[in-house]
Amino acid sequence: MRRVAVVGVGVSKFGNRADVSLPELAWESVKEALDDARLGAEDIQAFVVGNVGGWSSEALPAVVIGEYCGLVPKSGIRVEAACATGSAAVRTAYHMVASGEADIVMAIGVEKMNESPTPTVVEFIGRAGSYFWEFENFGLTFPGYYALYATAYMHRYGATEEDLCKVAVKNHYYGSLNPKAQFQRAITVEECLNSRYVAWPLKLYDSSPITDGSSAVILASEEVARKITDTPVWIKAIGYANGTANLSKRLDFIGLEAAQVAAQMAYKKAGIDPENPVKYLDVAEVHDCFTIAEIMAYEDLGFAKRGEGYKLIREGQTYIGGLIPVNVDGGLKAKGHPIGATGVSMIAELTKQLRQQADKGRQAPIRKGMALAHNIGGTGHYAFVTILSLSP
Amino acid sequence: MRRVAVVGVGVSKFGNRADVSLPELAWESVKEALDDARLGAEDIQAFVVGNVGGWSSEALPAVVIGEYCGLVPKSGIRVEAACATGSAAVRTAYHMVASGEADIVMAIGVEKMNESPTPTVVEFIGRAGSYFWEFENFGLTFPGYYALYATAYMHRYGATEEDLCKVAVKNHYYGSLNPKAQFQRAITVEECLNSRYVAWPLKLYDSSPITDGSSAVILASEEVARKITDTPVWIKAIGYANGTANLSKRLDFIGLEAAQVAAQMAYKKAGIDPENPVKYLDVAEVHDCFTIAEIMAYEDLGFAKRGEGYKLIREGQTYIGGLIPVNVDGGLKAKGHPIGATGVSMIAELTKQLRQQADKGRQAPIRKGMALAHNIGGTGHYAFVTILSLSP
Repeated sequence: MRRVAVVGVGVSKFGNRADVSLPELAWESVKEALDDARLGAEDIQAFVVGNVGGWSSEALPAVVIGEYCGLVPKSGIRVEAACATGSAAVRTAYHMVASGEADIVMAIGVEKMNESPTPTVVEFIGRAGSYFWEFENFGLTFPGYYALYATAYMHRYGATEEDLCKVAVKNHYYGSLNPKAQFQRAITVEECLNSRYVAWPLKLYDSSPITDGSSAVILASEEVARKITDTPVWIKAIGYANGTANLSKRLDFIGLEAAQVAAQMAYKKAGIDPENPVKYLDVAEVHDCFTIAEIMAYEDLGFAKRGEGYKLIREGQTYIGGLIPVNVDGGLKAKGHPIGATGVSMIAELTKQLRQQADKGRQAPIRKGMALAHNIGGTGHYAFVTILSLSP
Repeated sequence: MRRVAVVGVGVSKFGNRADVSLPELAWESVKEALDDARLGAEDIQAFVVGNVGGWSSEALPAVVIGEYCGLVPKSGIRVEAACATGSAAVRTAYHMVASGEADIVMAIGVEKMNESPTPTVVEFIGRAGSYFWEFENFGLTFPGYYALYATAYMHRYGATEEDLCKVAVKNHYYGSLNPKAQFQRAITVEECLNSRYVAWPLKLYDSSPITDGSSAVILASEEVARKITDTPVWIKAIGYANGTANLSKRLDFIGLEAAQVAAQMAYKKAGIDPENPVKYLDVAEVHDCFTIAEIMAYEDLGFAKRGEGYKLIREGQTYIGGLIPVNVDGGLKAKGHPIGATGVSMIAELTKQLRQQADKGRQAPIRKGMALAHNIGGTGHYAFVTILSLSP
C-alpha cells in the first residue's frame, strides 16, 4: 500500500449560505485547498464528492461541482455514508492514491441543508436509520435517537444535564475563536440548561445546527507530496465499520459499537496502544452531533474508561491544556454540521493543527505528532476513525 | 497496484419488482454472487452499494442492505454516478483491493425505480444533467437529451429510424434468451417503427424501461482469487471521465466526449490498440439507454469509424458471429436499466461470458480472452470503460 499525504486543505464559511449555489459553495473550499497545496485544478487527477443531497435541485452534484471547479474531464463520483459522508469521500480518494491508480486526488465534502424547508430536513434526517423498522413505526426524529442514548447513559452512570451542557460550552468557546464557524458566540452552562428541550434530556444547545458548508482536502502519493510540500500530513490509518440499523438489536445504548470497531481497526493499523491512545494523540475531532455523542466518543475511542467520559468534560480535560483537546474548531455543535462536509472538515482542521497553523487561541500543543478524527453516520450506522500523523 | 479478479457474480431478476423490498432485491444477487464464489457473507471484508435512490423511503440504503445481507459490522458506503453508478461501485471496490486495504470486497448495485410514481421518475431523470442550465430553463426530459444526439447524428451521417430500430431488435432478441431480462419477447423492426414517439426521432421501442433490479460482484486480490477459484476473471483496466453538464458547451452531438476519453484511458492501461480494439475483444456490453446511444458507443469505443456505427448494426456485425457481439444479455433496452445496478450487471454478464457460462443461444465465442463494459451516466456526464480479461 502506497503512503498517502494530505497536501492541501480548505474549508468554506459554515452557516446559512443562501448567498451561494452548491457548486459555488464547494468552490470556496476547493480554491482554498488548491492554493494551500500550490496546485491548479488541472493537477487534480480525480475527485470524490461527499454529498448527501436529497434537498438539492441538482440531481448530479459531482458533475456540476466538478465542472464549476474546473475539474472536468477528470473523473469524479459522489459517495454517501449519512453524516459520515465526508469520511467516506476521504477514504475513497485515499484508496485511489494508495493503490497507485492516481497521484493527486481531491475529496470535496459539501452540503446545502438550508435549501430544504425545515420540516423536510427533519424528516429526512429522521429517516437516517431504518425507515422500515424505526421511522415508519415509531416516528423517531434524529434527536430522539440520541436522546435514547443520553437517558440510558445518564441513568447508568450518573451523568447530568449539566455535564452535557459543558460539552456545548467548550465547543461554543472554540467556535468563538474560529472565523469559519456557524456560531461564534461563547455560551454559559446556564444558557444551555435554560434552552428548550428538543427531545428530553437533549436541549437546543445540546444539538448541532442545520448548516451549509464545504471542505476539501487534496491527497497525494509520497513521491508527489515530497516534491510539492515541506509539511505533508500523512494518513496513517483509517478504521471503519457499519452498525445495525435496527435499534432493537443493539446490546446497549451507552456507546456506539461501530465506533469501537472502527477505533480498534485504526489503532491497530497505526500502531497505537488501544489501552492508552491519548499517549499518542495531540488533538482529536469527534462527532458531537449532540453533546451526549461527544461523551460517548471519549469512551468509544478509549480516551476515558466506560462510564467515565463525562468526568473528562466535568474536569475540563478536553480543553487545550488538558488530557486531550477535542473539537477545538467548535465541533459539529458550534462550527456547524453540513453533513456531507463534516468528515472532510475534520481532516482539514487536524491537518492545520498538526502544521500548527490553527487560529489564535485554539492551536493545540503538538508534541506527539498524531491526531484523530471520529466521524459517525446515523446513530452509529456508519463509523470512521482516521489517524493523521506528521511522520509517514 | 495489486491485481484484482472477479471471483463471484450475481444478478437478480430485472423488471417491476413490487414483490420485494430494496434489501430483499439486493440479497437476490448478493446470494448468487456468494454462492458463485463459494464464500459466506462473513468472508466479505467491505462492500460498496451503488444506488441512486431519491425515490426510496430508505435514506441509508447501504446500511439496510448491508445488514439484511449479513455484512454488518463490515463497512459499506453508497456511491452514485447517475446511470453509471454501478461502475462507480465496482471501481471503488476495485481500489480497495488493488491498494491492499482489503482482500475481498463486494460491489452491489441496486435500484427500485418503480417505487416512485412515473412522473417523479421522469422528472428526476430529467434533472440528470445541469438542473440550473437545462432542466429549469428548457424543461428537457432525458429522452429529449438523447433525441438531440439522434437528430444531429442522423442529419450528419444519413442513419435512419430503421437503423435505430435494428439495435432494439437485436437487443430484444438477446433479451428473449435471458431469463433475468425485463423484456423477453423478440420484436420486429416494424413493431419498433410503429411504436409511439417519446421524443422524435426516439420512439418507445428505442428506449430502455424503468426497472427494478440488482447485481453483485465479488472482487478479490490475486492471492485469494488463485485459492478460491479456477476461473478468475481479471479487471485489466478501468478508464473513466466526466463530461460537461452544460450541453451548450459541447462541441457536437454525434458522440460522447467522456466516453472517448474513458475508452482511450482503458485501452492504454490494458495494452489495447485504440485503432483496432475489436482485435482484442470477444464481446462488449454498451450503454444502450436509447438505441442511438449504442450506435454512438460503437464509434466512441472505436468499433467503427466516426459516422459509420449505424452500418455495424445494419450489417448485423454486433450479433454473435459478427465483428463484435454487443449486449448479448439484452442490454439496457431489453434486460432493463435499474440505474444503480446496470454497471455492476455488465461486469457480471461479461464474467459469465468469459467463463463461457452464458445462457443457451447467447454465448459469444471466446477466443481472445478480453471483454469490455461501457457505462454512461447522464448524457456523457459520467463515463466508465472497464476491460476484463482471462489473463492477469
